[in-house]
Amino acid sequence: MRMYDIIDKKKRGQELTEQEIQYVIEGYVKEEIPDYQVAAWLMAIFFHGLSDHELVKMTEYMAKSGDMVDLSKIQGIKVDKHSTGGVGDKTTLVIAPIVAACGGKVAKMSGRGLGFTGGTIDKLESIPGFRTAIDDKEFYDIVNRTGLAVIGQSGEIAPADKKLYALRDVTATVDSIPLIATSIMSKKLAAGSDKILLDVTVGSGAFMKSKKDAIILAQKMVAIGEGAGRETKAILTNMDVPLGIAVGNEIEVVEAIQTLQGKGPKDFQEICEVFAANMLMLAKIANEKEAHERVKEVIANGSALQKFAEMVKTQGGDPEYIYHADKFEPAKYHQDFIAPQDGWVVKMDTEICGKTAVVLGAGRETKDSAIDPKAGIYFYKKTGDKVKAGETVATLCASDKEKLKGGVEYLKNGYFFGDQQVDPMKNIIAEVTKDSVIDN
Amino acid sequence: MRMYDIIDKKKRGQELTEQEIQYVIEGYVKEEIPDYQVAAWLMAIFFHGLSDHELVKMTEYMAKSGDMVDLSKIQGIKVDKHSTGGVGDKTTLVIAPIVAACGGKVAKMSGRGLGFTGGTIDKLESIPGFRTAIDDKEFYDIVNRTGLAVIGQSGEIAPADKKLYALRDVTATVDSIPLIATSIMSKKLAAGSDKILLDVTVGSGAFMKSKKDAIILAQKMVAIGEGAGRETKAILTNMDVPLGIAVGNEIEVVEAIQTLQGKGPKDFQEICEVFAANMLMLAKIANEKEAHERVKEVIANGSALQKFAEMVKTQGGDPEYIYHADKFEPAKYHQDFIAPQDGWVVKMDTEICGKTAVVLGAGRETKDSAIDPKAGIYFYKKTGDKVKAGETVATLCASDKEKLKGGVEYLKNGYFFGDQQVDPMKNIIAEVTKDSVIDN
Repeated sequence: MRMYDIIDKKKRGQELTEQEIQYVIEGYVKEEIPDYQVAAWLMAIFFHGLSDHELVKMTEYMAKSGDMVDLSKIQGIKVDKHSTGGVGDKTTLVIAPIVAACGGKVAKMSGRGLGFTGGTIDKLESIPGFRTAIDDKEFYDIVNRTGLAVIGQSGEIAPADKKLYALRDVTATVDSIPLIATSIMSKKLAAGSDKILLDVTVGSGAFMKSKKDAIILAQKMVAIGEGAGRETKAILTNMDVPLGIAVGNEIEVVEAIQTLQGKGPKDFQEICEVFAANMLMLAKIANEKEAHERVKEVIANGSALQKFAEMVKTQGGDPEYIYHADKFEPAKYHQDFIAPQDGWVVKMDTEICGKTAVVLGAGRETKDSAIDPKAGIYFYKKTGDKVKAGETVATLCASDKEKLKGGVEYLKNGYFFGDQQVDPMKNIIAEVTKDSVIDN
Repeated sequence: MRMYDIIDKKKRGQELTEQEIQYVIEGYVKEEIPDYQVAAWLMAIFFHGLSDHELVKMTEYMAKSGDMVDLSKIQGIKVDKHSTGGVGDKTTLVIAPIVAACGGKVAKMSGRGLGFTGGTIDKLESIPGFRTAIDDKEFYDIVNRTGLAVIGQSGEIAPADKKLYALRDVTATVDSIPLIATSIMSKKLAAGSDKILLDVTVGSGAFMKSKKDAIILAQKMVAIGEGAGRETKAILTNMDVPLGIAVGNEIEVVEAIQTLQGKGPKDFQEICEVFAANMLMLAKIANEKEAHERVKEVIANGSALQKFAEMVKTQGGDPEYIYHADKFEPAKYHQDFIAPQDGWVVKMDTEICGKTAVVLGAGRETKDSAIDPKAGIYFYKKTGDKVKAGETVATLCASDKEKLKGGVEYLKNGYFFGDQQVDPMKNIIAEVTKDSVIDN
């Protein structure tokens, strides 16, 4: 087999065989195939795409290029939930306890913040004492005993993806939907769960700016999951505005606590309940009707919050912070962001909103930056909300006065006001399974 | 400027600016831009092509990446003639003396054989004593004095093309017509002539297998030449069969001599006369009617042959070989290739015919192989010719018995016989100028 012929075949729009895909992925990871050949191949894929068979095989070999997590020591059906990224996304903090409180098993490996999107691990680590570096054995034990654990990624997950992504990043082949699908799903397949629930975000704070592209991405990821033998469902959600009110670390934990008590922001509460119910359905714990009832029930009776406190305690954190969220002290400095006119918030650039949080200190400017757990923003008004001149639409928090100033300046490009009322996107936009696309 | 943005722009099908093209070509030659980025860019060009403006600028910067030959020391209009490659192409050996005999100036740099196509320099070097390594000053002097010289390439012509071609060769981006056009024309622009006459070959022994592709290539090359301020014309010629009868080195020189005497094979005689006349027209030495008459005249009166003998003598060769071609001794071994049936030659794979010559020793297996000047093949019967079972259709010659055997075996895939008469391609298929495509 020659890489030249494989590039040529893809360039002509012909479908590659499993063996050819294996040859490329394995050869590239072993550095037997040079960057320039893979770069040409990726550009050919940009133009011709990948068939479902190619998608599945490429993703499988990317997953197999590193450690394959074995969750078989955990009893029950393991469902993984993954978001394609957003601003204010603290969903895992809420749905993991809900699902566990309903009897599900949540063995979740999460990441740190990257670019303008925050990371679940960073958020959890803002709880004093919380440990995310937990070895496999302890991880399985905790999940079997308590129903949930959220830990940082250990081992080497999908190194082929790391290498391919780094090459795509310098050859203008990042924005290929099939390649995005293989990248995300290779890590999901390696993470070892039985079923996969995908949160495909859409809008100004998401990688997919349009519903059309998001549906294509969702379909490709579902095709990969199903083709690899994992039941997979994708739900498209609104990332045209930040999710919930709080964007930061500690303040998102507090909002997660409120949501576990049924008092979360309307959009975030709805999304958490829908995702938790879907996880219960995928785990075969409940049918659709029961699932929604059970979710409501464990929120109402306090067992979801209790489960979160239990998780925090098990992972070395102080559960008192969960029961008494006011123990989280606010950031030293605050500044309100004011509506400049009467009218409506007509648009938000959610990527700018996320970057504002980074400017304030809530995210990392570079891979090795430290983050400030107290920094963040409360977005009280979002697209579609009516405002009066001088009214506070957001409040920025930081531990550093200069950063606060920088954040306020930055956010000016994140909010757009106007005289015309606009209809915001729905929170839940569509659901994609292997057989259907259902608009909400 | 960032290479990433330039790749991305091309990927989206947008036209690059002159500055962007300069950045890529110069940066690549200086090794400031890595192979993998250029590979992705070339693949994007494969899919989106190049506009005429991009073609011209890319070719100009490729030409300027190395030595630019300055022919201004030679008086008169210098016309270069270039073929896109073929089997049995000894055209330069005939047209250079004809044009010089008519008063034109031919300052020609030629190449050695590559792959299945022979090289003019190799052919000339089969004349005892002939020198092709001549420095610039002597080259200009000879052309001013005698009207012609054919020498090997010296200096570094278009190193950007060398580097880009090597990358295309391993990334499956060779078969892009715009990239082929830039590659050929970058060397022509660097070679310094005022006008360019292109022989674009079509058929089984050419890089362009179809007339359609050949016309596109011709148009792009003409657009580049004209865009760079050199009047350029392309003539499409038949390379679906070998050109003339003889394919080799010495035997092609002999055939060139016969053609200069008006006794060449019909197809080769016609092509030489047409090209010579076109060179005279481009050089403004004659209008169309006069040009054809002058060509006929210098053949008939022996001055064309005399000019060839003069060139050979000036470049150190023995002119007696030109006046007495029987001084070229035949190869030691011969074997006839026999028609297996009554009928017609219905098809030739001319690339196989060329490779057969290489097998016999007439070409180079690798860059450093020595060639056997006596090895070669006479193709007496070509596509469209009637044959009888047992009749000789070709004769193979070699200095080595094993090679002869190998050649005979190889040629079996070069000839196809059948019961149905077929119409061969015309010798001259079409003419392409900046304003027109004229079918012959």
